[in-house]
Amino acid sequence: MQTHLRTHTCGQLRISDVGKSTTLCGWVQKTRDMGGLTFIDLRDRYGVTQLIVDKKSYARECVLQVSGTVIERESKNKNLPTGDIEIKATHIKVLNEAITPPFTIEDETDGGDELRMKYRYLDLRRNAVRKNLELRHRMAIETRNYLDKQQFLEVETPVLIKSTPEGARDFVVPSRIHAGDFYALPQSPQTFKQLLMVSGFDRYYQIVKCFRDEDLRADRQPEFTQIDCEMSFVEQEDVLQTFEGLARHLFKTVKGLDIPVLPRMSYADAMKYYGNDKPDTRFEMRFVELTHLVKGKNFKVFDEASLVVGICAKGVAEYTRKQLDELTEFVKRPQIGATGLVYARYNADGTIKSSVDKFYNEDELKKWALAFDAQPGDLFLIVSGEEHKARKALSELRLEMGTRLGLRNKNTFSCLWVVDFPLLEWNENDNNLLESLRGRWVAKHHPFTSPKPEDIALLSSNPGAVRANAYDMVINGVEVGGGSIRIYNKDLQAKMFETLGFSKEEAQTQFGFLMNAFEYGAPPHGGIAFGFDRLCSLFGGADSIRDFIAFPKNNAGKDVMIESPGAISEEQLNELHIQIKKEHHEKK
Amino acid sequence: MQTHLRTHTCGQLRISDVGKSTTLCGWVQKTRDMGGLTFIDLRDRYGVTQLIVDKKSYARECVLQVSGTVIERESKNKNLPTGDIEIKATHIKVLNEAITPPFTIEDETDGGDELRMKYRYLDLRRNAVRKNLELRHRMAIETRNYLDKQQFLEVETPVLIKSTPEGARDFVVPSRIHAGDFYALPQSPQTFKQLLMVSGFDRYYQIVKCFRDEDLRADRQPEFTQIDCEMSFVEQEDVLQTFEGLARHLFKTVKGLDIPVLPRMSYADAMKYYGNDKPDTRFEMRFVELTHLVKGKNFKVFDEASLVVGICAKGVAEYTRKQLDELTEFVKRPQIGATGLVYARYNADGTIKSSVDKFYNEDELKKWALAFDAQPGDLFLIVSGEEHKARKALSELRLEMGTRLGLRNKNTFSCLWVVDFPLLEWNENDNNLLESLRGRWVAKHHPFTSPKPEDIALLSSNPGAVRANAYDMVINGVEVGGGSIRIYNKDLQAKMFETLGFSKEEAQTQFGFLMNAFEYGAPPHGGIAFGFDRLCSLFGGADSIRDFIAFPKNNAGKDVMIESPGAISEEQLNELHIQIKKEHHEKK
Repeated sequence: MQTHLRTHTCGQLRISDVGKSTTLCGWVQKTRDMGGLTFIDLRDRYGVTQLIVDKKSYARECVLQVSGTVIERESKNKNLPTGDIEIKATHIKVLNEAITPPFTIEDETDGGDELRMKYRYLDLRRNAVRKNLELRHRMAIETRNYLDKQQFLEVETPVLIKSTPEGARDFVVPSRIHAGDFYALPQSPQTFKQLLMVSGFDRYYQIVKCFRDEDLRADRQPEFTQIDCEMSFVEQEDVLQTFEGLARHLFKTVKGLDIPVLPRMSYADAMKYYGNDKPDTRFEMRFVELTHLVKGKNFKVFDEASLVVGICAKGVAEYTRKQLDELTEFVKRPQIGATGLVYARYNADGTIKSSVDKFYNEDELKKWALAFDAQPGDLFLIVSGEEHKARKALSELRLEMGTRLGLRNKNTFSCLWVVDFPLLEWNENDNNLLESLRGRWVAKHHPFTSPKPEDIALLSSNPGAVRANAYDMVINGVEVGGGSIRIYNKDLQAKMFETLGFSKEEAQTQFGFLMNAFEYGAPPHGGIAFGFDRLCSLFGGADSIRDFIAFPKNNAGKDVMIESPGAISEEQLNELHIQIKKEHHEKK
Repeated sequence: MQTHLRTHTCGQLRISDVGKSTTLCGWVQKTRDMGGLTFIDLRDRYGVTQLIVDKKSYARECVLQVSGTVIERESKNKNLPTGDIEIKATHIKVLNEAITPPFTIEDETDGGDELRMKYRYLDLRRNAVRKNLELRHRMAIETRNYLDKQQFLEVETPVLIKSTPEGARDFVVPSRIHAGDFYALPQSPQTFKQLLMVSGFDRYYQIVKCFRDEDLRADRQPEFTQIDCEMSFVEQEDVLQTFEGLARHLFKTVKGLDIPVLPRMSYADAMKYYGNDKPDTRFEMRFVELTHLVKGKNFKVFDEASLVVGICAKGVAEYTRKQLDELTEFVKRPQIGATGLVYARYNADGTIKSSVDKFYNEDELKKWALAFDAQPGDLFLIVSGEEHKARKALSELRLEMGTRLGLRNKNTFSCLWVVDFPLLEWNENDNNLLESLRGRWVAKHHPFTSPKPEDIALLSSNPGAVRANAYDMVINGVEVGGGSIRIYNKDLQAKMFETLGFSKEEAQTQFGFLMNAFEYGAPPHGGIAFGFDRLCSLFGGADSIRDFIAFPKNNAGKDVMIESPGAISEEQLNELHIQIKKEHHEKK
């Protein structure tokens, strides 16, 4: 890293360098006045080195070029790679002054979210944030190394494409040359990667920006990055093995971890045992169905429920009433949606006490304990109601209990494949822009996913029962990637569009080029896409993806640093043949 | 590359595999009926393998899965890596049928440009095109390998940014959430990479899509890819050495070529000796100025010219009158713009005959020969007129002569740095959207380029004479990359914006975040960006970048395969708070 301005970086010098002349460049992290002498911590990306200078004060964050001699420190700092040495400075040049930053550049002081984002360029100086982006760099490099070795070709697909209102909303770009026409930004390169398979590219990947104009929930970004892959002449098993290999390679090279072979779980089992198609399997606490066990005892809530389902929390029978009330409140929150929580304590003395003792005697509760495979000391938590809602609520409660019991360590990784997804799901109140597409079967993954061959016959008679050759990779309860074996037969693809409620014309307008391509010899193919931002945050042990993106947008889709989006000039609008709608225009 | 559908690829089997059972998948390239038996060439990305099947016909391009035994061929094909063997097929499954493609999938038959682009997915099946994209993949991998080793971090910068009408036109994206506001697509990540330097990232790179809404000349794309790089604590020399290293690494690893150290040429010399700031140095034929030698001989054309300048074409004194007329016509084309061409033949017998013998006697012509350092057999080609126009015309003629003389071999590479560019150039008829920015000094590179320190004083007095710390890498007459040492001082940056005619408010609105960032300790920094599409086409020995882009747009910015840009729905327009201007809307 030697340049004409420095001989070493601030992370480089060691005891073996003592006596050398050196020139360092960096930012003033800290100064300590020690009477006559000043100690300065000089920081760059590579580390921190201590300087001794004649008494002079330098502002925090000002940029120095310092020449001097490497000497051994009297009091060594074992926490710092350069902690054995310091630089006796002979010449200091201020390369740039700095005014006082709005927050100090330390790991623990970030000035709050709004300030951090406005001064992202200062936030990025903090080790913690920069290390996230270094991790991201490493993840990208290792992803490419692995896929390159597997003969995948990185091919760039276009960013200016055509709007296909199926799925989420597109961002669009008015064309200046073609008045009244628009490009759209891709929600994914799905059709292009399939065309590359028709082209015989055999194995394709791309680490690529995608765009969705969605109402932003926390931790969603309008632009996000995918590891996007596709392979030809494969069955589902080939895809699973190849990308399980990628996950193992990344854990090995980036985290130094050997992860076990990924277990497979059917969607049906994931829903049955975890109430969730992305189960967090760092801990067990699987769902136990009690419906048949609890009916007919005059407890109206259970008698009227289509499902009674519970979990057994190990060793917390002694939870206080207050703790149990908290859990009840938790499941009754609107976003969780349970009407209540039944609990039973399997006490250390072997007795069982429940919140519904009125209806169930000890013998009956013992049967519950048996069903839960429980030990004295365990706590049973039970919800009931409509099947889908009860599972969803219990899934949230299970995660909450996992958190409370410390079973969700961010540095433990539990990976699995969820397979055998349903091909379709019924959507009542779809907000799709195309009215004809509301209240209808929608693709669980996307319209190019192939049904399992043995289920194709059900497409007309019982669409909801058709299983797909689709799979998700789930790590720690997060869906990090998902994909499918694709339809490669034109007639089946047409049938699929028909099932999804597309008219022939709509299908032809939006996806005609793909359907046409299928006529010229399309190979069997399948693929997967990983959410790269999410994968990086998971590897980094963080909850939010924002700190793994150099310049993220806030929840309103704004970049508050550059103040984007913003106004454009009348001349630009004129050239693009558009105008802002009156009501909005006048407000401005 | 083994999968559940194949044991080998079509490029894999050799004589040592004879006797093995194999299953291949691929496309029918060709069938030859040999009476009772049929030979099929089966193709995939990896190669072609010959099959022997019982007489049956398969359509070209249909997709087969073929099982059989590897046997030795009777008549071997030395041109094919698999040419020693063939597969005696025992089982053939048609994986997909194919209708007749609009052009045959052969290296030499492409059906013409329009058809190729409409059926790009078939065009991409052609070896020649796929090999270009394989080269591109290799270039990207090797670029990343080199930069990773040099500690550059790949950081993704945002695609949805803010419109800054300086420079070319932006593509813009209407915001749904923020009515009346727009994002813009980046023309380059320039400001973001500078902010990353302010953040202390030290070394950044990205292989990144950029966007310019320009009127498309041949071989320009509205979206294109850059290798974008920036370094801190560097001088120009550091940048030149680092990226010369990248060029050498790419030539070595991708082409197997050791290229010499890159010569440096000043912009002034490039203009003086080649009439061009991106000289093709595969051949010499440097400009020789004759102005002082030829004046005062009553030849009005030369007498009135501010510059008389020529080249000496080796060994073609015997060009016919027809050939010389062609050259005269060439320089008189409107896009070249010379008013005429003077020539002189230095004959093998030592005599010199010129097209202006009326004005110049043999003695005088001998002086020309001396100036040209010419040998008998050479031809002198001379243009005259206004200095800039004459140089431009002669530069085109020099390139034309280079081509005619076979001096521009696409597999010969001559690289150099052009340095010491002027900081500014005067622009009379600027079409800039901001009226205040018309008729003014504009940045030759961009407004962030630093002047040479010794020239800063000239900024107010003689802006045109200020040289920049800017540099271009030129290969074979193509500018493949360009960059500069940046301004990192807030006051100098403000002075620069002022010189460029920005009001304080305009500068603050557009680049305020960067100028603010400079207040918090900006390091000296500089960088470069390479045109990746162009670099790939150059390495591939091609003139056009189109065939190094998987899905390019045509000269009207259209993707004719997916028919983009296209119409969007009223509902989409409404949600985005825009409408198409009436006159255009009614046409549709």
